[in-house]
Amino acid sequence: MLEYQQRIQAFLNASLNNLDVPERLRAAMRYSTLSGGKRFRALLVYASGLAVNAPLNRLDSVAAALEYVHAYSLIHDDLPAMDDDDLRRGLPTNHIQYDEATAILAGDALQTLAFEMIASASSGLSDAQARSICLKLAVGSGQTGMVGGQILDIQATNHQLDRRALENVHRRKTGALINAAVICGALCGDHTTESQLSGLSDYADNIGLAFQVVDDILDIESSTQELGKPSGSDVENGKSTYPALIGLQKSKKLAQTLYQESIVSIAAISDNTSLLEDLAKLVVERTK
Amino acid sequence: MLEYQQRIQAFLNASLNNLDVPERLRAAMRYSTLSGGKRFRALLVYASGLAVNAPLNRLDSVAAALEYVHAYSLIHDDLPAMDDDDLRRGLPTNHIQYDEATAILAGDALQTLAFEMIASASSGLSDAQARSICLKLAVGSGQTGMVGGQILDIQATNHQLDRRALENVHRRKTGALINAAVICGALCGDHTTESQLSGLSDYADNIGLAFQVVDDILDIESSTQELGKPSGSDVENGKSTYPALIGLQKSKKLAQTLYQESIVSIAAISDNTSLLEDLAKLVVERTK
Repeated sequence: MLEYQQRIQAFLNASLNNLDVPERLRAAMRYSTLSGGKRFRALLVYASGLAVNAPLNRLDSVAAALEYVHAYSLIHDDLPAMDDDDLRRGLPTNHIQYDEATAILAGDALQTLAFEMIASASSGLSDAQARSICLKLAVGSGQTGMVGGQILDIQATNHQLDRRALENVHRRKTGALINAAVICGALCGDHTTESQLSGLSDYADNIGLAFQVVDDILDIESSTQELGKPSGSDVENGKSTYPALIGLQKSKKLAQTLYQESIVSIAAISDNTSLLEDLAKLVVERTK
Repeated sequence: MLEYQQRIQAFLNASLNNLDVPERLRAAMRYSTLSGGKRFRALLVYASGLAVNAPLNRLDSVAAALEYVHAYSLIHDDLPAMDDDDLRRGLPTNHIQYDEATAILAGDALQTLAFEMIASASSGLSDAQARSICLKLAVGSGQTGMVGGQILDIQATNHQLDRRALENVHRRKTGALINAAVICGALCGDHTTESQLSGLSDYADNIGLAFQVVDDILDIESSTQELGKPSGSDVENGKSTYPALIGLQKSKKLAQTLYQESIVSIAAISDNTSLLEDLAKLVVERTK
């Protein structure tokens, strides 16, 4: 896992250095993309790609694209008009470190760059692969997926959602991009089957929901220092959470069930699923 | 021209109606995409596509993508942290009509939707075309193009730029997307030649710069009512302009020269360049 974290870090660093871009914008784009993070979405791309024997150079570009979309979403989510967060990964958020206008534009440019990376010849993808990956990434990150989930999340603030509505928010807000990461990695393979895609999609949906349930649990149980962002912010911000809805113990059990289902989903797809399994474990065992 | 304006309006309307998207987000996306505008970038896609005999259904999707990127950029440019404009096309700007968070997200989602439109099978594009159009649109709208130009524009506020620096701002901020519109239209053709692309690119660069020169002139000579946005805002906001740099009469002459060069650029590309010519004329003769 560490090997691929270092690999994507080096790739992102080189890719952002090579851009033709005004320096202040580059600095803001680098700041939020390179400053830590678990690289969870990039790792999912590699893990899924390795499971279907996809070449590493293609996975680099696609993993970078997913990280760019994730970084853009964090920058925009942290803005004063949105979650108004000053701290992210233990550092000032982008609009605190730079300014709001720069943060908005850095987010905008990172989104564009994600699609540029995939469509560029240097990705090593075939035309059909580049197209299907662009489409999957767009559906996962746009109005149907991540951005749609973000607006539902804002609308739900200070309303207690029922379980079905809460799951709909999460499936869009975080689940859709996690699904896109796993599927885009698999689409880098030259011989990926429908049955593999189906198993991987189930895997992604299970760990995507587990990721959010664990996030809700950590927001209660961890300290601000451990999280690198304010703990207890869900309650303070009037967010619906799994612990509030079904209780803390049942939330922990739900995370375990989702983990086990994710492992079952990929049991038959190939012999090379160890990184996928490690990542599923990480989702439920992480402490920040 | 009117025919294609009506065509893209109907296409955008249907396309936004068919989305799977939370209603408030759809409303904000529709508000800024459908509320008037000259549809200049869409018209450029059709005009360029017609010049190379591209099928109309492909041009619809690509023209819509350009309009989505343009709409997203206007929404974000109008935000309080950016140009802080309350009025656009005679109507309240998106963040005034809705709220800042919704406006940021509507812009984000419109950008994503642009790439989704192109990559989708319903665009009728081949895989190679979809890929090259995604790439051209990304380069024109991202850090190298439009967003890069926007940050240069912000940095240049209250500094008098020399002509070369001002041209660099405009080539990125508005020229790159105009060039992308023209080239993306041409890439919808099945037999587009390098020589056609080269002539069309020169055409685009000339009208792109003319567009900005005329914008600067109109900001001085037109009323707020005619423009549908505050006139005199360049001076008030400390922006460098062509009239300030080279004088009003020389600015008008420059616009004419750029117009004539744009016509020369496309003289040899095909027999079907009348819409391209009409659009170049519109750029220099428009009054708002």
